[in-house]
Amino acid sequence: MKEFDLIKRYFAQGGHTRKDVLLGIGDDCAVTKVPENQHLAITTDTLISGVHFLADAPARSVAYKAVAVNLSDLAAAGAEPAWISLSLSLPSYDQAWVDEFVKGLFELTEYYSVQLIGGDTVTGPLALTITAQGFVPPNTELRRSTAKPGDWIYVTGNLGDAGAGLDILQGKVEASGEDRDYLINRHYYPTPRVMAGTALRRTANACIDVSDGLVADLTHILNGSGCGATVHVDRLPVSSALFDTVGAQQAYRYALSAGDDYELVFTVNEEQRGNLETSLTNANVKATCIGQITGYAGQLDLRLYDARYELDDDAGYEHRFKHG
Amino acid sequence: MKEFDLIKRYFAQGGHTRKDVLLGIGDDCAVTKVPENQHLAITTDTLISGVHFLADAPARSVAYKAVAVNLSDLAAAGAEPAWISLSLSLPSYDQAWVDEFVKGLFELTEYYSVQLIGGDTVTGPLALTITAQGFVPPNTELRRSTAKPGDWIYVTGNLGDAGAGLDILQGKVEASGEDRDYLINRHYYPTPRVMAGTALRRTANACIDVSDGLVADLTHILNGSGCGATVHVDRLPVSSALFDTVGAQQAYRYALSAGDDYELVFTVNEEQRGNLETSLTNANVKATCIGQITGYAGQLDLRLYDARYELDDDAGYEHRFKHG
Repeated sequence: MKEFDLIKRYFAQGGHTRKDVLLGIGDDCAVTKVPENQHLAITTDTLISGVHFLADAPARSVAYKAVAVNLSDLAAAGAEPAWISLSLSLPSYDQAWVDEFVKGLFELTEYYSVQLIGGDTVTGPLALTITAQGFVPPNTELRRSTAKPGDWIYVTGNLGDAGAGLDILQGKVEASGEDRDYLINRHYYPTPRVMAGTALRRTANACIDVSDGLVADLTHILNGSGCGATVHVDRLPVSSALFDTVGAQQAYRYALSAGDDYELVFTVNEEQRGNLETSLTNANVKATCIGQITGYAGQLDLRLYDARYELDDDAGYEHRFKHG
Repeated sequence: MKEFDLIKRYFAQGGHTRKDVLLGIGDDCAVTKVPENQHLAITTDTLISGVHFLADAPARSVAYKAVAVNLSDLAAAGAEPAWISLSLSLPSYDQAWVDEFVKGLFELTEYYSVQLIGGDTVTGPLALTITAQGFVPPNTELRRSTAKPGDWIYVTGNLGDAGAGLDILQGKVEASGEDRDYLINRHYYPTPRVMAGTALRRTANACIDVSDGLVADLTHILNGSGCGATVHVDRLPVSSALFDTVGAQQAYRYALSAGDDYELVFTVNEEQRGNLETSLTNANVKATCIGQITGYAGQLDLRLYDARYELDDDAGYEHRFKHG
């Protein structure tokens, strides 16, 4: 398909360029230089039409979200993003779609000074895979397996908005006006917490990003660390848009089990708590303390105003979108 | 899909492990260390069922070929392979298929001491994307844009076998016995020319791997370098299996326009020719001189025993498989 050469040209000509990219798009490989005294963090995520995004999602959102999801993984490791590679599978060529896609692709890369260094464009079902790479100083990367009993549990931003946005798009939830626009926007254009990730490097004990839902992702931390947790459902940060649209009870459910918010959940011990709050304030990141890590391995104790809270929804253990 | 957790476990437990991988599969990112005084070469290739491999291709071949294609890109840049990330999209879970896939995945990684450091497993049409990374000393990477008039043109191994193997599988060519097995095997299990790539670093001027066919890929070198070339069709290296199966004339056509051989085409000037042949002999790589780079930009002059040779096949300018 000759048009695919055109796409390659868009990719090669657009976007941010970096001095540490010695050879970019157009050869068999890209060649880059990792700074001295930095380790390399690498992540790969695939988004498939109808599985990870709505088949009629705007092209700009498809590209934007694929970049955001990968930068979010780097953020969860405390890495500073540097380069991405994109593999795009397209069933056919549509100029308007490609224009919007390219726009969405370069929004976050421009903002975070990330360079697209290569990839592949093939004929096939609509899907895209991005591999993102970033830098992290030796022995400062954040992991999910290093939470300790007694650690405070925090989450950045608000939870549940993206899941509600998806349900609005699918006609399962009614919403109107600004709230509707806001929630849909949080689904289509999630914010990777890049600044928060690097700010947490030397203070947080464990970290993960919320892709599958708070309960599911916090459980990854608990299983990896051999710990339990108490989470105060009434303290979960929810937006006024979500609260006003679905009410408190439903808002809590979204906050606990809806995915695709790409906020960071992290733990910090009492001693580092002050330093952490200072770093986050300096980075202009909102974070909310929602509970505490316990020594009861595998036990997640949800509390609503100190009463036991039952989550009658097991969807949180799978990717929310697949159930949406 | 819970079974997908099983696949992740296979991936995490199998294969070669390296000391420069500080954090492997299982967290948000892998963390690695690039050796001092080495640059990083990065490539991404996607293979889609029915587009890049037969829908009924053995699972072992699907995985093996995806790794080979990516290592071949690193080889064409002169890079030594180190790590791969795999994104696998599967329509459903089939234990026997997955077992074979994992076997094929780790064959080349074991052989070349490459570690699988992460990836993604998703539900979707059968497809896989691999990002491979390797090391190359500063300013020694091989490019396609640096051929010079007067350079000799070489190719490793034999050409055309993989394309004939595909045609045999599709019933377009008759073959039997050992020749049939050999040609099909070259289609399913191509050899990335890793040793050749590193051996060529300091002597070759330009290099590319033959994925789309000799004419198509040599044209990339010519366009990138602003040169032309004379190629002696009668000197193209073809296997006795191909020769015996389709005869000389058809063998030349396969050698010129069939893809998926993953041999390296490279150019070298007269002065470095002796050093190059010594390096290749030391690396136990067969390479054949097939012609010469000229100053006639964009002109590819094919010769058969010094007469002009017309290639009545424009398939060489697209990926052979799509037409096969």
